Amino acid sequence: VKVIALTRAQALTQVWTPEFVEALDGVGEFDLVEHGGDLSDANAAELLRSYDVAIVGWDARPVPEELAASPGQLGYICCYSGTIRAVVPRALVQHGILVSNWGDLPAAGVAEGAVTLLLAVAHQIPRSLRVQQEGGWGFDGSLSTGLRGLAVGVYGYGVIGRRFVEMLRPFGPRLRAFDPYVDVLPEDVEPADSLEELCRWSEALVVHAGLSDETVKSLGRRELALLEDHSIVINTARGDIVDQEALFRELQSGRLRAGLDVLEPDQLAADHPIRSLDNVILTFHAVSHSAWPVRGVDPRHDRVLEQLRRFGRGETPQWLFDTDRYDRST
Amino acid sequence: VKVIALTRAQALTQVWTPEFVEALDGVGEFDLVEHGGDLSDANAAELLRSYDVAIVGWDARPVPEELAASPGQLGYICCYSGTIRAVVPRALVQHGILVSNWGDLPAAGVAEGAVTLLLAVAHQIPRSLRVQQEGGWGFDGSLSTGLRGLAVGVYGYGVIGRRFVEMLRPFGPRLRAFDPYVDVLPEDVEPADSLEELCRWSEALVVHAGLSDETVKSLGRRELALLEDHSIVINTARGDIVDQEALFRELQSGRLRAGLDVLEPDQLAADHPIRSLDNVILTFHAVSHSAWPVRGVDPRHDRVLEQLRRFGRGETPQWLFDTDRYDRST
Repeated sequence: VKVIALTRAQALTQVWTPEFVEALDGVGEFDLVEHGGDLSDANAAELLRSYDVAIVGWDARPVPEELAASPGQLGYICCYSGTIRAVVPRALVQHGILVSNWGDLPAAGVAEGAVTLLLAVAHQIPRSLRVQQEGGWGFDGSLSTGLRGLAVGVYGYGVIGRRFVEMLRPFGPRLRAFDPYVDVLPEDVEPADSLEELCRWSEALVVHAGLSDETVKSLGRRELALLEDHSIVINTARGDIVDQEALFRELQSGRLRAGLDVLEPDQLAADHPIRSLDNVILTFHAVSHSAWPVRGVDPRHDRVLEQLRRFGRGETPQWLFDTDRYDRST
Repeated sequence: VKVIALTRAQALTQVWTPEFVEALDGVGEFDLVEHGGDLSDANAAELLRSYDVAIVGWDARPVPEELAASPGQLGYICCYSGTIRAVVPRALVQHGILVSNWGDLPAAGVAEGAVTLLLAVAHQIPRSLRVQQEGGWGFDGSLSTGLRGLAVGVYGYGVIGRRFVEMLRPFGPRLRAFDPYVDVLPEDVEPADSLEELCRWSEALVVHAGLSDETVKSLGRRELALLEDHSIVINTARGDIVDQEALFRELQSGRLRAGLDVLEPDQLAADHPIRSLDNVILTFHAVSHSAWPVRGVDPRHDRVLEQLRRFGRGETPQWLFDTDRYDRST
């Protein structure tokens, strides 16, 4: 398999690490061509036609639309990141050239962010850090909570909710989920018939729902009031699913605890009283952020290599776009 | 099965919750008898002889030694906590009365504490909380690290190390372990031949070793220097396994990051410069602390109920003491 990455200007060093390039060379014949932004569309198309696969992503020269009608050798465009529309014209997807992106990779990151916030709130890390900074030693741990036996309610059981449950299971929580669009749950996850029922049962409520007309502000004053004192709310999904003012009131009174990666709007006054509370962790939509690791193979690298191996064996790559998914994507 | 709990004075309300008592009544015929401290040894023994099982723990009246020679009905003493020697005389174990405690329950707590610290340090929760408190929004996330693909080295692969790996596995890290006393590791945990090799490989090094002549100060200046820049050290085991001054220097220079539940000695000057760093979380030997949950069955309750069911079915309970284990216990 002949593989090319044609970058717009200089290649991003954190993407094209020596390890990644070496691994690509092991899978096929790989060329990294920089400064593709200097090429005309015709010349870029001509170059890409002589390869089987093009790897694209944040630093890619956009793929010329004219390849749709005459792709030459080019059968597969593999995107190492999520955003596809800025780089691959719709016509290529329409003409049946295979186009994939990183698929559910971010789901694992969002789920890990939710686990991080849940553990940090449950084990009172903010309180602990304050004692650390103020010169103390130890604190009243009567609100510290291990996950074993904890009643964790999962609101929304899509790809992120599923990954979250997989990550949480070994800690031994009790699990319940509410998702009107999911019929089958794993044996150890009890279904809840309503969000109300879920709130009444949960000691920690974790939002993994998508934002829609049905879910907007669905976790309101009434639902939050059903949670027991000191229960935990985790939101790494969308801020607007929660009635934020109602939640903030419950946090300021000290009745609930929360880890919030998302707010609506995505900002907060510099002097907002919520900022100084020990029962709240705010992470500015960044808890799932993962810079490229110090060493070794990045998960995004892994995913690209996995797809190229599939393609090389004549199998269909995963996370392919059709025009529907293309139109819904960002 | 006839089951008794004979408490010294008043029964601890956080132990004998209505839910626990109801569950015990479901497993056998259960009596909770308070103020056993007022009974003579002879009278206490007489009472206990008419039950099959005695549940003991922090609030129990000590079991009279004379039961060893004439136990009557009493065949099993089930301790809901860890400490056994203050409540059950050695002679009962020696005479073959079954005696068990909570077994590996604390191991899961210590392992969960280590996961909590690893996630909190990797996702820069201290930095995030500082921004939250100081009125900012967002921060440079170039040191934020997801666990997927991260090289996690486990130093010590006993019961806690094993539980830690079980909890970490779904996050998708690469795993390696060093333990000279363990021959067989799971397929996805590569053995390291030395602590040096483990340090050279690890992006996060997690201490789960016991303290011994071999391990004391074993993670010293030379070993720490083998870790890459921004690597993470987690210690929920014993402070003295690490050369603390060497680690503190690496933290003050900003070269390493750490989550430390244990220090040696178990204190720190109120104005120690380590306290103000964003690359350090100190948790004062409390990160594994779990107060009794808001609602529902406590893990310690679960363990007792599980053992009683085993005993009721004629199976051998787990975590039994022989005189060897009794002599080594606290």
